[in-house]
Amino acid sequence: MNAPRLLRALQCQPVDRVPIWLMRQAGRYLPEYRALRAQHSILELARDARLAAEVTMMPLRRFDLDAAIIFADILLPLSTLGVAFRFAEGEGPVIETRIEEPRDVDRLDVADPRAAVAPTLEAISRVRAVLPQDKALIGFAGAPFTLASYLTEGGSSRDCARTKTFMFRHPEAWDRLMQALRSVALEALAAQIAAGADAVQLFDSWVGTLAPDDCRAFVLPHIRFIIRELKARHAGTPVILFGTGTATLLPAMAEAGADAISVDWRVPLRDAGAIVGAGTALQGNLDPALLAAGPMERLRETTRAVVSEGSRHPGYVFNLGHGVLPHTPVEHVAVVVEEVRRYEPGRGQRT
Amino acid sequence: MNAPRLLRALQCQPVDRVPIWLMRQAGRYLPEYRALRAQHSILELARDARLAAEVTMMPLRRFDLDAAIIFADILLPLSTLGVAFRFAEGEGPVIETRIEEPRDVDRLDVADPRAAVAPTLEAISRVRAVLPQDKALIGFAGAPFTLASYLTEGGSSRDCARTKTFMFRHPEAWDRLMQALRSVALEALAAQIAAGADAVQLFDSWVGTLAPDDCRAFVLPHIRFIIRELKARHAGTPVILFGTGTATLLPAMAEAGADAISVDWRVPLRDAGAIVGAGTALQGNLDPALLAAGPMERLRETTRAVVSEGSRHPGYVFNLGHGVLPHTPVEHVAVVVEEVRRYEPGRGQRT
Repeated sequence: MNAPRLLRALQCQPVDRVPIWLMRQAGRYLPEYRALRAQHSILELARDARLAAEVTMMPLRRFDLDAAIIFADILLPLSTLGVAFRFAEGEGPVIETRIEEPRDVDRLDVADPRAAVAPTLEAISRVRAVLPQDKALIGFAGAPFTLASYLTEGGSSRDCARTKTFMFRHPEAWDRLMQALRSVALEALAAQIAAGADAVQLFDSWVGTLAPDDCRAFVLPHIRFIIRELKARHAGTPVILFGTGTATLLPAMAEAGADAISVDWRVPLRDAGAIVGAGTALQGNLDPALLAAGPMERLRETTRAVVSEGSRHPGYVFNLGHGVLPHTPVEHVAVVVEEVRRYEPGRGQRT
Repeated sequence: MNAPRLLRALQCQPVDRVPIWLMRQAGRYLPEYRALRAQHSILELARDARLAAEVTMMPLRRFDLDAAIIFADILLPLSTLGVAFRFAEGEGPVIETRIEEPRDVDRLDVADPRAAVAPTLEAISRVRAVLPQDKALIGFAGAPFTLASYLTEGGSSRDCARTKTFMFRHPEAWDRLMQALRSVALEALAAQIAAGADAVQLFDSWVGTLAPDDCRAFVLPHIRFIIRELKARHAGTPVILFGTGTATLLPAMAEAGADAISVDWRVPLRDAGAIVGAGTALQGNLDPALLAAGPMERLRETTRAVVSEGSRHPGYVFNLGHGVLPHTPVEHVAVVVEEVRRYEPGRGQRT
């Protein structure tokens, strides 16, 4: 009867408390995660359903969070395309089969990504079995632009210059690449919903490197396609669209059909709310650097300011603007969860 | 009598043509620059006044640009603080004496940076002697936040997470760091003006990683200090304030007292113009990835669109949103200069 608080907020329904989860809540800032990582690589964890489920549950044992997000990586489904990658210690992902020329796109094997995400699907079943009913389980996938950026840059990039150069120079090959990647994202998300995910987040982490017109021309149609198809197959499952540095892209992103838009600390939530309008929920937007830094009093104050501003929007989920940083003290996370819990929508902070 | 077109535009005075220069116009996309770099490191070029002057003039021999920007690097003046750095091939700058703790700030030697920029000052005299009178000469320095980001990250960083963690965690040490760096930037810029620079640009390349409130609290006072002091010493010399990803920071940046604000491709120029208002010039904002990519027709069209939108603002300088990318074909730059030249302010494109 009572849907988890997170799902109600994503559907812009009233909630008793502002729901909270944190991107990368299961990550390197947790000592128990680091202990497991000392024995296993990221890919080993993600490809072992038992371990992935275990990691997924770690932050929920410590903090009163409203959602688990399944432990996986946005690159996992790419193996279905014949893309080889690895995670270099301290460097992040390294893509070994890069896209440099249009012919590299034609070589991609457009297959069903469900095999590549099979361990994630099994991990979802396992988490589902132990997750309390008032908590939601979130599945996710990388959005086409962000996946393309890894494929063309060969790893992380500040400006996605190679990606955009390819996009402008080879618009037809770019379109084929987007079609392949949107199909990967769509099937990965649909499979996670079928396996038991209550909501899904599409990570377009680097879309903020685009000009608004270019986002509309080269990216938005593919995002819209994914969301439309997901809605056709799984009407009731909320979709969150996430990006960073998206201040000028929000009008475009708001047209993609997502239930919620996740914004970072660069966009004040009141401005984001005015752009996305009633009927689309907001998620965000504490700066992960502040979460890592403290000091405690500033962290508490800013958290209160964020939750107060966010909850003026009908449909709001507290989160960071991007993932928890590895050097974040665990007690900072505890303090933020406590402050968000203490806040009563419509009544303000309980004293 | 007739000030160079660039200076007129920066002072919001009427111009016969839209002035154009390009960040990193003297850089790796030029074969003659690459030939020189095969024999000399970046630091060798920047620390040899004759070579720095030679590199500065390279793009002006090829293209009808309105300004030369002196060849140097924003890290050069840091050697005055006792900071050691080098340029690693393909990786960019590597800072060997990083700021990690407040005590690292106290170790900085706040000295006069003029000795560290002496070759730049001599290069300015040399360029001045050969530069046609209708061209302007631009000096520059790194802004405090961006310099601090190199010092704390140890090099380039996508999110400046370490920098911001230090800033939030140690606000007093941060303030001392900003004061040291603003003094370096101020003295470096004032010395360049005294040596013959007609205008100066303050590069706050990574300030766009900040939330608006944090920009106002931790950075803006120091930018404002630099500009106020420069104006007190050199009233007539225009100051350009540059950043990337600054869509939500523009209201703060517009209060810093700069003559012009340089924005990237993420902010439509009409929106930027509405925020900075009449009396502050705009600079920008073609995407360097498009300049690198072409195709030619799209490049011409977008250039026309940028110049047309920009020149609606009283006081506009055509530029990129960030520096020319190394893989940019020289002929793309020629095409952009041609399109900007062809445009008549108030009358539109000549056919």
